[in-house]
Amino acid sequence: MRQSQMFIPTLKEVPADAESASHQLLLRGGFIRQNAAGVYSYLPLGYKVIKKIEAIVREEMDRAGAQELLMPAMQPAELWHESGRWDVYGPELMRLKDRHGRFFALGATGEELITSLVRDTLNTYKKLPVTLYQIQTKYRDEKRPRFGLLRGREFIMKDAYSFHANAESLDEAYWAIFHAYCRIFDRCGLKYRAVLADSGAMGGKDTHEFQALAEIGEDTIAYSDSSDFAANLEMAEVMDQGKERAEDSLPLEKKAGRVSTDDSDWVKAEWFKARSETVLVFLRAGDEVNDVKVKNVLGTDMIEPLDPEQKPDAFHPEKGVRVLADNGIKGLTRGVLYSEKEDVTYIQIDPERDLNIENFFDLRFIKEGDPSPDGKGTIKFAKGIEIGQVFKLGTKYSETMNALFLDSEGKNQPLIMGCYGIGISRTLSAICEQYHDEDGLIWPKSLAPFAIHLITVNPKNEEQLSLSDKLYHDLQDKGFDVLWDDRKERPGVKFADSELIGCPVQVIVGKKAADHIVEVADRREKERVETGTDRLEQAITELLNGRN
Amino acid sequence: MRQSQMFIPTLKEVPADAESASHQLLLRGGFIRQNAAGVYSYLPLGYKVIKKIEAIVREEMDRAGAQELLMPAMQPAELWHESGRWDVYGPELMRLKDRHGRFFALGATGEELITSLVRDTLNTYKKLPVTLYQIQTKYRDEKRPRFGLLRGREFIMKDAYSFHANAESLDEAYWAIFHAYCRIFDRCGLKYRAVLADSGAMGGKDTHEFQALAEIGEDTIAYSDSSDFAANLEMAEVMDQGKERAEDSLPLEKKAGRVSTDDSDWVKAEWFKARSETVLVFLRAGDEVNDVKVKNVLGTDMIEPLDPEQKPDAFHPEKGVRVLADNGIKGLTRGVLYSEKEDVTYIQIDPERDLNIENFFDLRFIKEGDPSPDGKGTIKFAKGIEIGQVFKLGTKYSETMNALFLDSEGKNQPLIMGCYGIGISRTLSAICEQYHDEDGLIWPKSLAPFAIHLITVNPKNEEQLSLSDKLYHDLQDKGFDVLWDDRKERPGVKFADSELIGCPVQVIVGKKAADHIVEVADRREKERVETGTDRLEQAITELLNGRN
Repeated sequence: MRQSQMFIPTLKEVPADAESASHQLLLRGGFIRQNAAGVYSYLPLGYKVIKKIEAIVREEMDRAGAQELLMPAMQPAELWHESGRWDVYGPELMRLKDRHGRFFALGATGEELITSLVRDTLNTYKKLPVTLYQIQTKYRDEKRPRFGLLRGREFIMKDAYSFHANAESLDEAYWAIFHAYCRIFDRCGLKYRAVLADSGAMGGKDTHEFQALAEIGEDTIAYSDSSDFAANLEMAEVMDQGKERAEDSLPLEKKAGRVSTDDSDWVKAEWFKARSETVLVFLRAGDEVNDVKVKNVLGTDMIEPLDPEQKPDAFHPEKGVRVLADNGIKGLTRGVLYSEKEDVTYIQIDPERDLNIENFFDLRFIKEGDPSPDGKGTIKFAKGIEIGQVFKLGTKYSETMNALFLDSEGKNQPLIMGCYGIGISRTLSAICEQYHDEDGLIWPKSLAPFAIHLITVNPKNEEQLSLSDKLYHDLQDKGFDVLWDDRKERPGVKFADSELIGCPVQVIVGKKAADHIVEVADRREKERVETGTDRLEQAITELLNGRN
Repeated sequence: MRQSQMFIPTLKEVPADAESASHQLLLRGGFIRQNAAGVYSYLPLGYKVIKKIEAIVREEMDRAGAQELLMPAMQPAELWHESGRWDVYGPELMRLKDRHGRFFALGATGEELITSLVRDTLNTYKKLPVTLYQIQTKYRDEKRPRFGLLRGREFIMKDAYSFHANAESLDEAYWAIFHAYCRIFDRCGLKYRAVLADSGAMGGKDTHEFQALAEIGEDTIAYSDSSDFAANLEMAEVMDQGKERAEDSLPLEKKAGRVSTDDSDWVKAEWFKARSETVLVFLRAGDEVNDVKVKNVLGTDMIEPLDPEQKPDAFHPEKGVRVLADNGIKGLTRGVLYSEKEDVTYIQIDPERDLNIENFFDLRFIKEGDPSPDGKGTIKFAKGIEIGQVFKLGTKYSETMNALFLDSEGKNQPLIMGCYGIGISRTLSAICEQYHDEDGLIWPKSLAPFAIHLITVNPKNEEQLSLSDKLYHDLQDKGFDVLWDDRKERPGVKFADSELIGCPVQVIVGKKAADHIVEVADRREKERVETGTDRLEQAITELLNGRN
């Protein structure tokens, strides 16, 4: 495409409210424009990239056996009443009333609609399993839209839903899509981790989030430096290192006040309220209690810290108080604990002897430097942007919405479901976070709007213009996607725009055009290399082959 | 794709509220499902066809030099206030309020949004012309959604907008897109007419509608049986046949009462009120006054029939009444007119002598059998479904929304605009109206969800199954898109579904499978022809080549 004819409104200034690199550079490079808070247009350059991501998603979803459909954004409120989410979804769900006074939700997600679509149809085990997906515009009225496309109010999502007669079939689809997601993000050139996540309020079982690594990410991921292991902070298991007692126990001692000691064996006590029970958790002073793990041990769905004034004496808990301990203090013989109540420091604590512990569990958050729970390598932390999620929904929606099938024994059963999402516009942002420098974007070749940026330094020069014109057509004939900057602008403007736009390879036609010599550069480096036009195709191919 | 794994919920019954063939057959064939009045899901088969239409639209729009972008459906109300349409668009415009109380329109059309997008950017003649398009979901809250996708409330549209520095440039883009539309609808296999239409309330100048011919169409088109001429009924010129006087005039005579005569030279008078003027129009009794033409002659934007009680005497109009006549009574010498006021019949009227006529004009609606205004052939009528429109907007939006550019003399001018729409989901319906029989759809090959429907009559038979499996893979390897009915259903069910789905070619693997003999049929005809599998590819190719 000739740049003189293409709509690429680059900006010189960094927009004031753009906080993240992706937001700034997508705006400055003329890829997107804001129409309202959290609402964007994809301009021709940006939409080219979106379509490339979508094509990859389609290919891999189809390969995983999923079938594409397109559901409407207008979802009758009745369906949301059936699932019970109309009242609980809150102000993020956009709602509207039609001219006859009937309410609709603007689709934030599609479980209700797809369940209503299949419930009269997938009515026998013979028609199962089926996986359906769509690439569609979704709506969520975020309170504080941020970071451009990362947290928008109108955004593009690939959502998929699978339907099964049994758990094994769901498991098969779950992992098929898990691996399709890995291929999708690999092909997009993303650095990401598939992390174990908390199924929490959604009421399902297994779930993984796909997190693109990026400094501005809002989630913290724990991952191994030597294996595939990765988990959300709250989900990461801590390996029970099952320490042997290093030394014999000594008699428990008490010292007045808070004793200052370098000893690393300080223990702390944390108190919680779980429904009617009071819970005391002992762990190492440097560790932090992970609520989710405590909840799982107690088999409850809610705990909260105990009011400080109600905190009883850790050393002499009343009857009925449940006393749990983290694996980290197992085998300790020189424990140190300060009791606020008594204003004394206990030393030489042997927890198993002295602390009335019911049992030891994994109750703390993982930390950087911990051994990886899979036994391979050491834990590191990273920030992540959630770009995808796979989720075993189970029968949550099929039960409430009465989506039943006849099993092989002729009995009615609720459909077993999975759901699977990829944020298409979020993925675009995540790629930009990973692929840029201070001058602009640097596209991976699988997604670049154009592979080659052909720049004519001075198009008023006849030799430069005619050589550029020839190269423009030759390179396209050879199958390269070429953006030709044929504009009558100053070279400085053209080079700055080229850095902003970020095509992988730049071909610069300048003063040596008469000698059929041009310059070639990889956008990542600033170095230009002269080459004769007879060697140009080879030079470009080498540059493209040497990068992702 | 194996049909046993594909989500194709065909229906045996005709849905009660489906009035048109396209609506019935798209539902029955498992192409679409209704989610609410005028709101549909495109199921996998239907979405395959939609994507094929979209691909054709993209190719031809790109070829015409247009660039694709994607704007949001959420359009800030402020923009609609700027253009003045927030208040005048009426209840068809869906509106919603976000959590902060700000109003948005759900895009029914995109003039406001695109004008706001380019107004700070296309600010010099040097950046013009530009044509931008998108394929996007649109919303119109139709009072009475009808005919399935034909008049829906959420639908897919391709809308395009062009921006120009002068009228010649707009004209060039207008015709480039006009011809792109012809190629698009040709490639879709549609029988259609590009008709001159009334630019009416939209305030522009030239406009053509693309009308797919179909019995259920809501618009009437006048077209020539021997040329390309076609126009909306209200726009079709009537050729001035400039009749010579056949006979000499005779003296005007009066007869009491309404004389019964077979004479075809009956004349009638119609009275209108146009602002402050009273207008009298004479025309042949068998013709009908075309308001649009009268308005154009008067240079007014509104006329209405005169209150019957106010109608004065046609033969003796008061002073100041404007008396116009249709060309059709030019040259008449034996006119007959009944005057209600006097209850007499005038005979032997010579209009030019007797009727105080100011001038003769083309003032009537065209009729079937009239000569075509381009001088070629005879006029016929057809019903049409509007599937596309091209429109010279002019400066309507750029003026109200202050979208200016600097012209070559350094002066600020409003951008000159065109807009161009194609109803993607409407086009799908129109194709179905033209391509079906009583048993189901019959897809043109350019849009068929699959080219070949391979039907295994009895998949429990080992020879049928293994031959089908081989053909399924062989045909796909040869580049054919194959739907394989491998289901364990009764043959009657399978054939009925195959007719409903309507792939162009059916390949039936039945009893002669052991002898490597199958049957091949064109979906249009019911005749099956036996062929050896060694000749199958040739037989299929011949069938496909012989149809559109």
